[in-house]
Amino acid sequence: MTYRPVSGLALAADIDAGRLSPGDVLNRAEAVIAEHEATIGAFEHLDIAAAANAARTASGPLHGLPVGIKDVFDTADMPTTYGSSIYRGHRPVADAAIVSMIKRAGGTIIGKTVTTEFAFFEPGKTRNPVNPGHTPGGSSSGSAAAVAAGMVPFAVGTQTGGSVVRPASFCGIAGYKPSFRLIPTVGLKPFSWTLDTVGFFAAGIDDVAYFVSAATGRNLRTDGAAPGAPRIALAHTHLWHEASGEMRQALETAARHAAAAGAAVAEIELAGLFSEAFAAHQIIQDHQAALALAWEHENHSDSLSAILRDTLDYGRTISVDDYDAARRTARAARLALRDTLTEFDILLTPSAPGAAPEGLGSTGSAIFNRLWTLMGVPAINVPGLKAGSGLPLGVQVVGRHGRDHETLLAAKWLETAISGAN
Amino acid sequence: MTYRPVSGLALAADIDAGRLSPGDVLNRAEAVIAEHEATIGAFEHLDIAAAANAARTASGPLHGLPVGIKDVFDTADMPTTYGSSIYRGHRPVADAAIVSMIKRAGGTIIGKTVTTEFAFFEPGKTRNPVNPGHTPGGSSSGSAAAVAAGMVPFAVGTQTGGSVVRPASFCGIAGYKPSFRLIPTVGLKPFSWTLDTVGFFAAGIDDVAYFVSAATGRNLRTDGAAPGAPRIALAHTHLWHEASGEMRQALETAARHAAAAGAAVAEIELAGLFSEAFAAHQIIQDHQAALALAWEHENHSDSLSAILRDTLDYGRTISVDDYDAARRTARAARLALRDTLTEFDILLTPSAPGAAPEGLGSTGSAIFNRLWTLMGVPAINVPGLKAGSGLPLGVQVVGRHGRDHETLLAAKWLETAISGAN
Repeated sequence: MTYRPVSGLALAADIDAGRLSPGDVLNRAEAVIAEHEATIGAFEHLDIAAAANAARTASGPLHGLPVGIKDVFDTADMPTTYGSSIYRGHRPVADAAIVSMIKRAGGTIIGKTVTTEFAFFEPGKTRNPVNPGHTPGGSSSGSAAAVAAGMVPFAVGTQTGGSVVRPASFCGIAGYKPSFRLIPTVGLKPFSWTLDTVGFFAAGIDDVAYFVSAATGRNLRTDGAAPGAPRIALAHTHLWHEASGEMRQALETAARHAAAAGAAVAEIELAGLFSEAFAAHQIIQDHQAALALAWEHENHSDSLSAILRDTLDYGRTISVDDYDAARRTARAARLALRDTLTEFDILLTPSAPGAAPEGLGSTGSAIFNRLWTLMGVPAINVPGLKAGSGLPLGVQVVGRHGRDHETLLAAKWLETAISGAN
Repeated sequence: MTYRPVSGLALAADIDAGRLSPGDVLNRAEAVIAEHEATIGAFEHLDIAAAANAARTASGPLHGLPVGIKDVFDTADMPTTYGSSIYRGHRPVADAAIVSMIKRAGGTIIGKTVTTEFAFFEPGKTRNPVNPGHTPGGSSSGSAAAVAAGMVPFAVGTQTGGSVVRPASFCGIAGYKPSFRLIPTVGLKPFSWTLDTVGFFAAGIDDVAYFVSAATGRNLRTDGAAPGAPRIALAHTHLWHEASGEMRQALETAARHAAAAGAAVAEIELAGLFSEAFAAHQIIQDHQAALALAWEHENHSDSLSAILRDTLDYGRTISVDDYDAARRTARAARLALRDTLTEFDILLTPSAPGAAPEGLGSTGSAIFNRLWTLMGVPAINVPGLKAGSGLPLGVQVVGRHGRDHETLLAAKWLETAISGAN
């Protein structure tokens, strides 16, 4: 199978210079989708003709660039299922805020990408473009796969546990989970309201930074920048032993290349409070999910997957005292992490336990992502390394809350440092 | 006009003891509504028969107690308009989280109460039960009026600026805006996602504390408690001169009664950073509203009120730099307020500039509420005092973030101390 993610930044430059028309770009996207969608299954809903029509009068930095939107975001002109049969045929009244922002920036939203059920664990139909026998990861399965397969240069996802960084790692593309509260979640079907975070996919760091800059009007771009070498902490949590040998090697390869390129690299242990915070993530998530999906749980229990129903059942048993204690633990860990990130610019950690697991029965494990979602800090999958099987192995760059531009620049620096490492 | 808010706590005790049946309570509510609704206009949608049927199998601490829900919350079994003609006839798929929580606690949701347009400033039809020539306040107009008129013992509202404390003050009832993030906003139509807060109305402090305890499973109750005298700061902000003479007198009356009952009362000035934070509230709110309502703004501009359209137009002009600066100011003020609230248990401030203004063209001013919403701290309207006109004058108790129970207990203490002051 041949696939190639397409640089959205390069497409924007081509359109800007008149080398490509928006119609050319859309035709290419259509051709790639026609070739691969039957295998990959990235889209829940697709309407390129309508999108082309709607974008006819568009202008802005995303003008002519096709975008996929995870089907947990409301769209007024497309069905929105949240990955659940309960919402089959549902058509929201209004667009989610990020959808409006992308349209304002001129983007052409061609379809809704496959999500796991309510962005939790029950998989959808999507396959990994690198090897269709493997999961693309989740819950933003379709968004990651559509970008990795070159169907769209840009896609939007969400992360509550590990739903952006993990699929980006499995599919070999850039995935960026911004600082908590940077991007509005208005019009996103909530699962856990203090954890749900809007995230972005693109071929590489320059591309994803261009995309989010265009959508938000913030200068988060990394192209053209020549960032200095960051101070890097290769961070081991209590879960380090859960990473595969190949993933540990990938981290060490990335650290070695970073050091060779001039970065100060230290190894640190994040134990104690941070392992408590890891456990707190699940308590907070499940308690909130049981409230956020209370209506579905009580009225359509039979239409929920077993894994979600069990989680909501469990969530209802979590006491407010345990929930409050988990929130206090999270707050304490955030302060401790802030202190750690005065000594270092970024943490370098695994994006996932290893390469994408075989089969489609599970979207893989979020254990290397949950802590960073709970901390509310920017987390970025840096692509470039590979397992012996040829499947991608992403490394994760974690920065300080609110320092998204600095973190993207460090991720770009690392991406350059490790390029050619395979 | 005669009206009388009904104690929900007393009704719960009567039902519990078998002195009243849920049917009796509902019949009384129906009779009061039949008598007053044509004048007051508290409800956007009302279906007592359906509610009675749905609640037939209910049990829990709110069993048999009628509840009104502000029409900015999604309900699966009732229309939901968000106070806008754009959503006329809209029927959401799922209930908002707080609706599910109230149903789980056994509450009987009899209808949707009138909200201003998208909980902003354009008034609905509701009149003040104390004097129908005056506004009930907003944006939770119908919820406050329904409780004040004795139609329901409990109602739910929201506050983004001053939409709970102000109407509670104007209508002479208890209004409680909890700490930010204590109550899920899932299923609430967003206006400003870091400010929108779910709030509660009832006859008095014991009642509102009972209601929120029942809905959340938290022990926030004040009935039966004998709290000690709080350390009170009579807090003057830079807006003190905007309070009417009668409101200033009400505050001084409350302070005098509190001191006589044994409280330590000091006067403090909250200037400088806090006046900057007051200004920051509007920047944050309007920037976020322009994103939260982007779809309505772009697709249904003609169906928006002039005041909302102008606000959204303005919101789009706010730069991300100004927005980020406003967020930093808010954070600094929160830390400063936390320090202030180590020396005092509560701040005592006006709930509104004065009594409810005459006429229905405006719901009055939120200038005495916005700062506390931005601070994310619990804010409670304590009823009991009156202007010369007979209209209520509420005083506002503000506590420390997360110390909601302590703040409710202090409000209860103050309510007792000032009872009989008029």
